[in-house]
Amino acid sequence: MKAAIIGGGVIGGGWAARFLLNGWDVAVFDPDPAAPRKINAVLDNARLSLPALSDVPLPAMGQLSYATTLTEAVTGADYIQESVSERLDLKHRVYAEIQHAAPDTPLGSSTSGYKPSQLQEGAINPAAIFVAHPFNPVYLLPLVEVVPSPASDMTLIETVKDTLRSLGMFPLHVRKEIDAHIADRFLEAVWREALWLVKDGIATTEEIDEAIRMGFGLRWGQMGLFETYRIAGGEAGMKHFLEQFGPCLTWPWTRLMDVPDFNEDLVDLIAGQSDAQSGHHSIRDLERIRDGNLVGFLRVLKDRDWGAGQVLNAHDALRRDTVKAPDADGPLVNLQVLPSWIDYNGHMTESRYLFAGSETSDALLRLIGADMDYVAGGHSYYTAETHILHLGEAKLGDHLTGSVQVLEADEKRLHVFITIAKDGTPVATLEQMLLHVDMAAGKTCPAAPDILARLLPIRDAHASLPRPASAGRHVGQRKT
Amino acid sequence: MKAAIIGGGVIGGGWAARFLLNGWDVAVFDPDPAAPRKINAVLDNARLSLPALSDVPLPAMGQLSYATTLTEAVTGADYIQESVSERLDLKHRVYAEIQHAAPDTPLGSSTSGYKPSQLQEGAINPAAIFVAHPFNPVYLLPLVEVVPSPASDMTLIETVKDTLRSLGMFPLHVRKEIDAHIADRFLEAVWREALWLVKDGIATTEEIDEAIRMGFGLRWGQMGLFETYRIAGGEAGMKHFLEQFGPCLTWPWTRLMDVPDFNEDLVDLIAGQSDAQSGHHSIRDLERIRDGNLVGFLRVLKDRDWGAGQVLNAHDALRRDTVKAPDADGPLVNLQVLPSWIDYNGHMTESRYLFAGSETSDALLRLIGADMDYVAGGHSYYTAETHILHLGEAKLGDHLTGSVQVLEADEKRLHVFITIAKDGTPVATLEQMLLHVDMAAGKTCPAAPDILARLLPIRDAHASLPRPASAGRHVGQRKT
Repeated sequence: MKAAIIGGGVIGGGWAARFLLNGWDVAVFDPDPAAPRKINAVLDNARLSLPALSDVPLPAMGQLSYATTLTEAVTGADYIQESVSERLDLKHRVYAEIQHAAPDTPLGSSTSGYKPSQLQEGAINPAAIFVAHPFNPVYLLPLVEVVPSPASDMTLIETVKDTLRSLGMFPLHVRKEIDAHIADRFLEAVWREALWLVKDGIATTEEIDEAIRMGFGLRWGQMGLFETYRIAGGEAGMKHFLEQFGPCLTWPWTRLMDVPDFNEDLVDLIAGQSDAQSGHHSIRDLERIRDGNLVGFLRVLKDRDWGAGQVLNAHDALRRDTVKAPDADGPLVNLQVLPSWIDYNGHMTESRYLFAGSETSDALLRLIGADMDYVAGGHSYYTAETHILHLGEAKLGDHLTGSVQVLEADEKRLHVFITIAKDGTPVATLEQMLLHVDMAAGKTCPAAPDILARLLPIRDAHASLPRPASAGRHVGQRKT
Repeated sequence: MKAAIIGGGVIGGGWAARFLLNGWDVAVFDPDPAAPRKINAVLDNARLSLPALSDVPLPAMGQLSYATTLTEAVTGADYIQESVSERLDLKHRVYAEIQHAAPDTPLGSSTSGYKPSQLQEGAINPAAIFVAHPFNPVYLLPLVEVVPSPASDMTLIETVKDTLRSLGMFPLHVRKEIDAHIADRFLEAVWREALWLVKDGIATTEEIDEAIRMGFGLRWGQMGLFETYRIAGGEAGMKHFLEQFGPCLTWPWTRLMDVPDFNEDLVDLIAGQSDAQSGHHSIRDLERIRDGNLVGFLRVLKDRDWGAGQVLNAHDALRRDTVKAPDADGPLVNLQVLPSWIDYNGHMTESRYLFAGSETSDALLRLIGADMDYVAGGHSYYTAETHILHLGEAKLGDHLTGSVQVLEADEKRLHVFITIAKDGTPVATLEQMLLHVDMAAGKTCPAAPDILARLLPIRDAHASLPRPASAGRHVGQRKT
């Protein structure tokens, strides 16, 4: 699949990274000679962070190329995303040239303000043009507002939404076109109010930022406005909350009716305060800090299958079937070392070696049918003991594989030897004894016949493998 | 220390929980007979989540009592927090009664709208009255807006800020009083715009919530408006961003100038959409989901020492000195089992046993001086191998201790036996061999003399302890 990215700034670069890391080829068109440098900077960030959200290996990265003309970029493309400056005349000129070469290809615009019907004016094929408005950093945040107009081809729009989901995004279908769509209307409201607070000397940029990120910002990363207020209403419910809050609306709190005079004094005031607040970090540092924080938040939500985390889990599920099912003779798991797995020595923290081992033995258990449904039925394998031998060091971003050798197995016992490898070289081995238990009784018991019917042939096949030298080793034993 | 909590709703309950869990005694006054039930519900949530943010043991919980009169509640209190309904006449009556009994005690109001000078009108001691506006859930979100008026006692205000910091909060000193302080002005702006979008049929409550939590909400949990836009400006900086964004301000995007008619139709529309969106979860479920998400976000920021995480680390540091320094003969660490540590069996996931063991061996290393400064100097102890024996199960919220017995030690080797216990009963033991390394050379080397001078006496003292039965055990060994 090929995507054409028209306009190679921060937003275009983020789109390019999303497509490339999901296996699409990408052709960028941007006459700015600095475009490749800018795109590569975004791509560097994306490669550090986006794969950390995925528990199913991403496909091999697509090919990135730079087209010298618009026509070259869009020819043969399956999807076109336009992220040029917010000038309607410019966008119209670009669309005319694009649709001269590729009239039927879905053509999404990253515009934050224009309505799709404005974008479609005078177009060769208005039906193929729509808004696909993403949020920075495009390679991490799932939201993309998809806005059709009455002239849009709704079959094409549904296909586009599927394409965006295949990139791990959350297409929010905006049913009625409106200036600035939905999210940016909130951002505009907050922005106006913030300008007044700074201009009137009520608060500095730093104080405003703290007022956001120490309080409601944390709430809004996981529930929106209404779900949050629903809770605040308590047992009495949403109606009670509304009836309490309603009257405040007529209070003259905000100065939203007026637009502050956006002159040089105000620009200098804000830029100076922002320098004082954040100037000790470079923009590159701030990007990396932001991305690390976002990856952390998104992993939390993924573990809890909530909000943006549900989008990530759905993205994994979508790709799980396309990845070759593991068998007990090859690597059972693939993991990438995440920022939160690093210790003060700069290496993967030791408990994550056991985590990698657990993921591997869990994969073996799923393979023999001792999966979540089996656990829900009241039986499981519990780890009784583990011996870990450290042989090398894993660092941030390393790709690790986990494979397993069944040393012994009977009705109740499963004795395995796990190798965690980086580029084929073991960094740790784990020897584990697992016991099959009746969870309610809290006692060992024989595994179900269909589990054993899958497990014992693996044991028999592995019986011919050489026994690992460190199997049966105790801590402090001299090497033999 | 004693806090008086006047008004026992969700906000008053959150304040009570903050104080109680930080070791203060709390007297609540609320004539509502349902107040104890409501406060206990908040306290139950807080006890599940707030301790999970702390890596230094919280003090023993204070005593909670219900006063039958305002005077009884505030007598002997070191701090008074008022969270009654948003009616100025009611607040004035309450303050008069409070200050008749306790005129000089700091008296904070949870008001989201009134200015401190309005609260102080006609008071016995206006100087002691100020705004301390928190955010729900009060026991988790750090932000509290502290707003004095020109009549305030600024020494008292500074003391109050220290008190709030000792509760793990982030007092944002609002320098100029203004209706709705700072954060709620943004919430009002967003709320108004959201009402229009719902009323005009542009978006449902669910679509609005997704537009927030899939995009800018995630950003705002870790950086505010200005720092986020600073990054968007890229290398060209904040001024460039402002100059680009500025002109959009005059576009007529939002409908903020008008207040929507807040009638029964709009209430029903919103309440109905909210039911469709979230009605399948009880309010209690939503609270627990929200708190689990927030604990996850806050732990991410804490690990990264950023934003709200810096507040949590500072709170730990503040208390670390008050907690008895561990010695090698008692438990070296105290841990509480967090939601993210639970596996699909409902138990603490196995890699967290090694995590608890690592925390314990790290504590021993700090005790002998092999701390972060030592690592920064290029030397460290690396774990070479570990044997883990599982003896019991740890579940969500369990308090675990980790203690260590030094089995052997010499210049390069440190052989330890760690016991992870719940209520004094071992749930796992870990035998570990640690090697002292020159990190640059990647080789073992003798530890520094001052490290050995602290380590070897511990080894000698532990030599008289009985050797644990499972020391030297290998995986699958029969019990002897």
